[in-house]
Amino acid sequence: MKDSLSLARLAQELGAELRLAPGVDASQEIQGLNTLQDAGASHLAFLSNSTYRRFLKSTKAGAVLVTEECANECPVTALCVANPYLAFARATALFNTAPEAAAGIHPSAVVHPEAQVEASVRIGPGAVVEASVKLGAGAIIGANCFIGEGSVIGAGTQLYANATVHHGCFIGEKSIIHSQAVIGADGFGFAPHNGDWIKIHQLGGVQLGDEVEIGASTCIDRGALGDTVIGRGVKIDNLVQIAHNVKIGDYSAIAACTGIAGSAVIGKHCLLGGSARIAGHVTIADGCQVTANTFVTKSIEQSGNYSGALPFADSSVWRRNAVRFGQLEQMARRLKDMEKQLQQLSRESRAGD
Amino acid sequence: MKDSLSLARLAQELGAELRLAPGVDASQEIQGLNTLQDAGASHLAFLSNSTYRRFLKSTKAGAVLVTEECANECPVTALCVANPYLAFARATALFNTAPEAAAGIHPSAVVHPEAQVEASVRIGPGAVVEASVKLGAGAIIGANCFIGEGSVIGAGTQLYANATVHHGCFIGEKSIIHSQAVIGADGFGFAPHNGDWIKIHQLGGVQLGDEVEIGASTCIDRGALGDTVIGRGVKIDNLVQIAHNVKIGDYSAIAACTGIAGSAVIGKHCLLGGSARIAGHVTIADGCQVTANTFVTKSIEQSGNYSGALPFADSSVWRRNAVRFGQLEQMARRLKDMEKQLQQLSRESRAGD
Amino acid sequence: MKDSLSLARLAQELGAELRLAPGVDASQEIQGLNTLQDAGASHLAFLSNSTYRRFLKSTKAGAVLVTEECANECPVTALCVANPYLAFARATALFNTAPEAAAGIHPSAVVHPEAQVEASVRIGPGAVVEASVKLGAGAIIGANCFIGEGSVIGAGTQLYANATVHHGCFIGEKSIIHSQAVIGADGFGFAPHNGDWIKIHQLGGVQLGDEVEIGASTCIDRGALGDTVIGRGVKIDNLVQIAHNVKIGDYSAIAACTGIAGSAVIGKHCLLGGSARIAGHVTIADGCQVTANTFVTKSIEQSGNYSGALPFADSSVWRRNAVRFGQLEQMARRLKDMEKQLQQLSRESRAGD
Repeated sequence: MKDSLSLARLAQELGAELRLAPGVDASQEIQGLNTLQDAGASHLAFLSNSTYRRFLKSTKAGAVLVTEECANECPVTALCVANPYLAFARATALFNTAPEAAAGIHPSAVVHPEAQVEASVRIGPGAVVEASVKLGAGAIIGANCFIGEGSVIGAGTQLYANATVHHGCFIGEKSIIHSQAVIGADGFGFAPHNGDWIKIHQLGGVQLGDEVEIGASTCIDRGALGDTVIGRGVKIDNLVQIAHNVKIGDYSAIAACTGIAGSAVIGKHCLLGGSARIAGHVTIADGCQVTANTFVTKSIEQSGNYSGALPFADSSVWRRNAVRFGQLEQMARRLKDMEKQLQQLSRESRAGD
Repeated sequence: MKDSLSLARLAQELGAELRLAPGVDASQEIQGLNTLQDAGASHLAFLSNSTYRRFLKSTKAGAVLVTEECANECPVTALCVANPYLAFARATALFNTAPEAAAGIHPSAVVHPEAQVEASVRIGPGAVVEASVKLGAGAIIGANCFIGEGSVIGAGTQLYANATVHHGCFIGEKSIIHSQAVIGADGFGFAPHNGDWIKIHQLGGVQLGDEVEIGASTCIDRGALGDTVIGRGVKIDNLVQIAHNVKIGDYSAIAACTGIAGSAVIGKHCLLGGSARIAGHVTIADGCQVTANTFVTKSIEQSGNYSGALPFADSSVWRRNAVRFGQLEQMARRLKDMEKQLQQLSRESRAGD
Repeated sequence: MKDSLSLARLAQELGAELRLAPGVDASQEIQGLNTLQDAGASHLAFLSNSTYRRFLKSTKAGAVLVTEECANECPVTALCVANPYLAFARATALFNTAPEAAAGIHPSAVVHPEAQVEASVRIGPGAVVEASVKLGAGAIIGANCFIGEGSVIGAGTQLYANATVHHGCFIGEKSIIHSQAVIGADGFGFAPHNGDWIKIHQLGGVQLGDEVEIGASTCIDRGALGDTVIGRGVKIDNLVQIAHNVKIGDYSAIAACTGIAGSAVIGKHCLLGGSARIAGHVTIADGCQVTANTFVTKSIEQSGNYSGALPFADSSVWRRNAVRFGQLEQMARRLKDMEKQLQQLSRESRAGD
């Protein structure tokens, strides 16, 4: 975390054109980020969404990230960029307040002597690293994490406290695994036999690409045969279930509470809204957007936007419509019957003319 | 945990009027709680729901918490109270069997020398408390918990084993954080850029009020800018997702598996049923009830009861209606067409009279 | 894990009839399992699902588990069995690559002197075992697990890293508890009182039968009064919520992301699809199948197949139908009105003949 950055430095870091407000000096320091509405003189704000444009004129921010187009409306110092949201994202890295993990391996961590640990790796208290694990340069293993035998954690990847990576998993570089995530637990597989279940031991692993982010309490099961594969740059939110042998294409993003059943294949650059449900063995084409709370029951062959959630209503209104839903088949038949009768009547009426 | 309490003492503790059954002495001991149906002579039962009234006459309980109105029907000793359910809740505290956490700081806990820890704090084995953390008087930190730099845990608050609180979070007094909960993981924020995602570092924190309860495996993300805020007395069940910058008003209760997307604002005294879904940036008025499995897609301005879940059916019946759902727009048009034809026919028929 | 097994040995272990391909010797070694499509000469494949039958003729597997009926089509060595899927499940145990937990109790584990720990028990680093816990012969407690006071873990049961079992819970033999699962956290119970919530302390526990499997991040709450009970052979996937006092009958299987509300009773041999929702106090008969994403709002008295999820659609199509859903009550009334008018017209028309 930087304590502060001058306007000049900020403009340079963000590739912005600096348009100083009257009386402001480029050496003025900015200490953090805030919204247009809440920013004070020491804050950098941003305008990326036109619905917030109305807040620009009255902002008290020290400076604002804006497009060329909006710069004239900016009452304070403007940092002109082509894409203010992108510049804002980059600025969050400059003002990131997250504490750095302590250097070295905490004495209470339990690192197997046969693990391969680069010198620059940081391991928190109570973390457990089993035999044959490889930890790449700059990897950070949080407190009380567990990494099972033979797994690989790429350079620059961070596991937050209490994350679990089971044996035989491969995690790429510069990835982030949030707390309580579980990578490589057994997939859910059983053969029925005389009313009992015989466990199908899950012999595959999990592969995560580079620059992947896995949310808190998200579970990515190991494959039954072969691996569960999460592509490069995939971002997965909290409390998501990824079943065995799922494949997720590069740069797809998956919002919280989503569940993806076994062997489903999600394309590249897909967006799954929160609480989406993907059935097993389904394939979703590249570039698909699935809106929140949608249940994808069959394969999607073509890029597009897909939905499946009903809007809510006042309970008394809802109840009446929900009851009618249960009569839809009957309504459809009555509709058809009436169409026939109507045709008949219409014919008769014409015949009678 | 008390081993037992006399009827006299129980009546006093619960503010109840003791109506001894014939031959029963106020010194008789009660050793635990049970339902009307299962209670024995050493148990206290309760009648708060009229559907269980039929069990009152045959109860074998040592005593029953009842209203004045039902006391006459009680075949055993009655403890008359205005609100038996409330009295039952209070009685659970008297007979609570949960073991007390061991006093002091376990030697295997890793407490940063710059953490401020009140003398009465109890910290379990393997727990990690980072720099500048403040632990209030009587706080209990369970085994293998993690508390990140600068976070504050209020007096009398308990974290159960394996809970995670990240840096810069504030948790009020007398709150409960259940196992595997994650407070303050990164919100899910990325700016798209040439098909890739640029991380928006989450610079805010999390604020939890006093007397909040957070369920097992529930995730409350830190804010992007500014904090995610959970009001006083809010109760959240297990496996709930609270995204960045959500605000939840005082005393609201949220059942399990619910997901609340970013920047949603839930009012005070709201009740969200299990698996409710709240869209991002939506506002819900004070005192709203959202029934289980409802997807709130837009703001609710008025207190009331809202629903959005369809009732299930036998699969063959369901399938037919679900197919018809996909024809609803077409059905609606046919309906309209028929109305026109009918009007026309009706006119003609009248004209022909 | 075995490095390899001869065809003869495999046939014996799996109770299969060995039909050697020309030039193949029964001593040939098989080193692992794979699919028909991906298997090489050192792999055993299987054909259990007729949709994969087309891959049989071109398989390069060393041997294939097939039925008698399909054996003739098998171009390589066949292992004939009555149920290839069952035989495959058993074969996964023979080729299981999961590392064995280290013997003994890791010195960093914190085991209360009053815990009863069989000599053959293995306890990983940082695990915490509280007073009066009983760990049966061959039990395996993973790294950083927590087991609360007085709980019992049956012989041969395995807890994976970071699992939590609270006090007073009973887990049977040969069961598996995956990482981050929470057994015995408080059920969600509060009595409303003047706008505030009074906690109902959860005095019951959790009972799990033998050969139960509990998925990663799944939560099984302790009972309010009396126990939450999971029957023998029940298999529960990841991120499932089981609320207080739920009872689940023997051998039922529950897929990921399902939520079961308080006091629901699920019969034996039931199958709940992913993201199923079961309302509180509902009873489901033995042998029911509930398809994915179905909300069971009332009791099911009869074995059968039940559904409640809508199929998705292209968003523009979906939106139109979803709007019509909100007009269903009105559509139903218009339909009825038209039927009356039509009847009237039809009468008139006949009268006018």
